[in-house]
Amino acid sequence: METYDIAIIGTGPAGISAAITATIRNKKIILFGSRELSDKIRKAHLIQNYPGFPECSGEDLCNAFAAHLEKMGIEITEEKINAVYPMGETFALQTMKNEMHQARSVILACGMVQGKLLPGEEELVGRGVSYCATCDAPLYRGRSVAVIGYSPEAEEEVNFLSEVASEVLYFPVYRDEPKVSESVKVVRQIPQAILNKEAAEEAFSLAQADPAKSSAKDLASGEALSAAGEALSVDALKQGQLAVQTTKGTFPADGIFVLRSSVPAGQLIPGIEMDGEHVKVNLQMETSVPGCFACGDITGRPYQYVKAAGQGNVAVLSAVSYLDQK
Amino acid sequence: METYDIAIIGTGPAGISAAITATIRNKKIILFGSRELSDKIRKAHLIQNYPGFPECSGEDLCNAFAAHLEKMGIEITEEKINAVYPMGETFALQTMKNEMHQARSVILACGMVQGKLLPGEEELVGRGVSYCATCDAPLYRGRSVAVIGYSPEAEEEVNFLSEVASEVLYFPVYRDEPKVSESVKVVRQIPQAILNKEAAEEAFSLAQADPAKSSAKDLASGEALSAAGEALSVDALKQGQLAVQTTKGTFPADGIFVLRSSVPAGQLIPGIEMDGEHVKVNLQMETSVPGCFACGDITGRPYQYVKAAGQGNVAVLSAVSYLDQK
Repeated sequence: METYDIAIIGTGPAGISAAITATIRNKKIILFGSRELSDKIRKAHLIQNYPGFPECSGEDLCNAFAAHLEKMGIEITEEKINAVYPMGETFALQTMKNEMHQARSVILACGMVQGKLLPGEEELVGRGVSYCATCDAPLYRGRSVAVIGYSPEAEEEVNFLSEVASEVLYFPVYRDEPKVSESVKVVRQIPQAILNKEAAEEAFSLAQADPAKSSAKDLASGEALSAAGEALSVDALKQGQLAVQTTKGTFPADGIFVLRSSVPAGQLIPGIEMDGEHVKVNLQMETSVPGCFACGDITGRPYQYVKAAGQGNVAVLSAVSYLDQK
Repeated sequence: METYDIAIIGTGPAGISAAITATIRNKKIILFGSRELSDKIRKAHLIQNYPGFPECSGEDLCNAFAAHLEKMGIEITEEKINAVYPMGETFALQTMKNEMHQARSVILACGMVQGKLLPGEEELVGRGVSYCATCDAPLYRGRSVAVIGYSPEAEEEVNFLSEVASEVLYFPVYRDEPKVSESVKVVRQIPQAILNKEAAEEAFSLAQADPAKSSAKDLASGEALSAAGEALSVDALKQGQLAVQTTKGTFPADGIFVLRSSVPAGQLIPGIEMDGEHVKVNLQMETSVPGCFACGDITGRPYQYVKAAGQGNVAVLSAVSYLDQK
């Protein structure tokens, strides 16, 4: 396997800036992301405060970034990263297709996930909640799964899961009409939380005691609609099962896949120090994991393009120093 | 006197970025700097890593910044700031022409001074070393001064001093032939240190004991050339006098003016916490002085354009939060 000097995860302004400066510094890099670069920027109507581009559209700025990458011969590897494992001298990067890459340092520039983490999600990762269909589908052969997808890109994984699981519920959290296999049951409701049996029972008790204060007050009636439309008692949730909770119902499943454009920062590298929902960094963009640096939205507010680009530059120069000292 | 929301000191990428975002946030700003923006950028032959501008010249990037400022109607006040005084609810900003401005918050984006501080300079500020001819010339009426000037801009102040002081020695630290009054004695030697009598004597003893280890080994002979060319003993330095030391001689004066494009960061605001030669900031670009923020080279390495622009954006958004909380 080829060992890269620096693996850069993300093609927003932070990742682009990191890739450009890494290339000038003659480092062998692999840049993971989308050739469309950043959807968030591309769709921006008007950007006024990226210095040097007065009143440009997101499309214009993206095209300027793309031209810059092309001019420098920087290629983008269109794979999503599911997990990063520190292995001592190198890092192993696992893609959503369960392939592995290897690099001596890593730059997290993957932005913030769309939407907040769902209540219960973080606690239940690895205990029924998964971010990677390819990696974890085999665990659910002949069992039921629910999939929460934040963009149409998730549909391919939904269809793959439908070939393996006995039942697939799909919660599309986007406007487009989902194009999925006939066997998939599409639920047009916005997930509010992920529960296991214990959490569901606790929420149920809380809701009965004080419906206004409960985060699961819709369980107050003691029943909810199942995916199939029948009334479902909390008791119906089997031991070990999870449930997707919406404002209208509770939907049990053996496993729940949450498919966003990127894995939440705190889940990507085991044990990395967080500051709330952001990866903790210092002014040099060092994280708590030696050899791993972070930049852009993932490091905290403000969420601004030029700030991300600036931090990408600093992160990569810190990575270069780290590599030089090795 | 008008009170601005934010005073921004510096027109490099950090100050420009701060001014742009402050304007979008509808803040009343005053931006101190040069209409030429940044000499350092303008003279850059090739800039490769400001994302969106592949392989541009410094001139191109400066022109793009200037166009951005013009598009947003942002004006530059061409005055140099000598000192910033926190006054409780506001800051008083003193210019090199001894005029005052007032603002509710301050952003230091003035970059690093050209060249390192001279040994002895920091310790002797206010004890014979000054950064402002207009402010301090009256102290040297009928006395001798030496001026160390880092750009031809200093010449105006040199000529002004020559009208007041009994003798003016001028050390131009730049290539152009200085255009100064006839009474000014121009010394074409590079200053190495600023000494007072005690330091000169100590350096002299050290140099005699071990010439190789001394920072002032040219004093080892016990004499040096005065400005007029005669041999000068260290003993000639009167109590209270200072001296400019070069590799070729020691030049006594009652006062020494050091004129750079900006005042060294640590001297600009009394008591601001430093980290070595840089102003100490956190990730929000807050300094130890409430209401005062810093960005760009002044906050530390790497000295990079896009990093400075990113930090300028963060600094101003932190200033906006600070103002909103007031």
